[in-house]
Amino acid sequence: MKLQAAIDRRSLQETIELAKKLDPIVDIVEIGTSAIKDFGFAALKNLKSEFHHAEILFDIKTNDEGDYEFKSGYKAGADILTVMGAMDLSTLKKTYQVSQDFHRDMFIDLMAMKNQQIAPLMKFNQAIFGLHHSHDSSSNFDATDSVAKFHETYPSASRIAVAGGIDLKSAAALSKQNLTEIIIVGGAISGADDPVQSAKKFMEVIK
Amino acid sequence: MKLQAAIDRRSLQETIELAKKLDPIVDIVEIGTSAIKDFGFAALKNLKSEFHHAEILFDIKTNDEGDYEFKSGYKAGADILTVMGAMDLSTLKKTYQVSQDFHRDMFIDLMAMKNQQIAPLMKFNQAIFGLHHSHDSSSNFDATDSVAKFHETYPSASRIAVAGGIDLKSAAALSKQNLTEIIIVGGAISGADDPVQSAKKFMEVIK
Repeated sequence: MKLQAAIDRRSLQETIELAKKLDPIVDIVEIGTSAIKDFGFAALKNLKSEFHHAEILFDIKTNDEGDYEFKSGYKAGADILTVMGAMDLSTLKKTYQVSQDFHRDMFIDLMAMKNQQIAPLMKFNQAIFGLHHSHDSSSNFDATDSVAKFHETYPSASRIAVAGGIDLKSAAALSKQNLTEIIIVGGAISGADDPVQSAKKFMEVIK
Repeated sequence: MKLQAAIDRRSLQETIELAKKLDPIVDIVEIGTSAIKDFGFAALKNLKSEFHHAEILFDIKTNDEGDYEFKSGYKAGADILTVMGAMDLSTLKKTYQVSQDFHRDMFIDLMAMKNQQIAPLMKFNQAIFGLHHSHDSSSNFDATDSVAKFHETYPSASRIAVAGGIDLKSAAALSKQNLTEIIIVGGAISGADDPVQSAKKFMEVIK
């Protein structure tokens, strides 16, 4: 299982410094949506050249204009880009095509999607399917339970990612469950007093 | 009826220059999603202070983290910000609260929403409801027909905006129909040889 650490709501300098610190530790460094909208690709495009180990995900949450946004994001150095599954299927077809052309990854964010809406997305068989509990939602989220149910309904989706309040305990449970390719950890790493130390603990737990 | 001119897919300098040229002509200048993701709020935050006439809309298409994104966008000078109606209702509650606190406008983008999903959004009674035909979709879009149907289903939605391939002919038809508060014109203005001249023509047609 891979660990993706998400960085959000920091200054540009802090974002870049933390990304470089996490590069040797985690598998994927996520530049969160807030950082994309605050600073833009223009300010982040040199990050990839300073990385030595981890992949970079830009959480751009594309809703439309899939071709333009994905080309811009990959050109700015992203290995993985995100698109909203709930949007028009034509947008996902375009982002998938661009991801294939660039030989990079597309992450479909399933936030706010009803189960039956997801079926048409299975044709994107190399995509990462991201179970994503809305940050703003007040309802509870059981990560292992959500993954189990998703896998039961869509066994052909071989690449599963999960995000939403993941802590060490749920990381360990997801690792044991062995259905998830990527766990995404936000506040428990980037908001920790010592993010590097916290990332190391997560890596130990999911070994 | 108001005219909103959308600027997308240009360099930062071209975006700012065109925005300032359109300021005296149109009612609302939209900084498109591509420009937000390419350059970020940081690069656009001084634009408002250089405007003399038009309102500024940042098309940020918020999907989550409504509180943070809307506060960031208004602080960067936007008069109007956009949120995706298809996302979790909790996100829209947060963005609406922030828009009320800042005494500015929230624009709900109805892209990819089924008609019956829209009903719970009617509680945001001061929001602008944006009928938005996906740029990526290949299906046809009849703007006046879409507005008529939306108004029939949701007569309480008093502020309607419409976007998607609007030309002078459909602008004139929408003006005559008298149900729409804002028409949003993209390529027909920003992609014209003379965008200022084109914007003036649209303003004449919707008088």
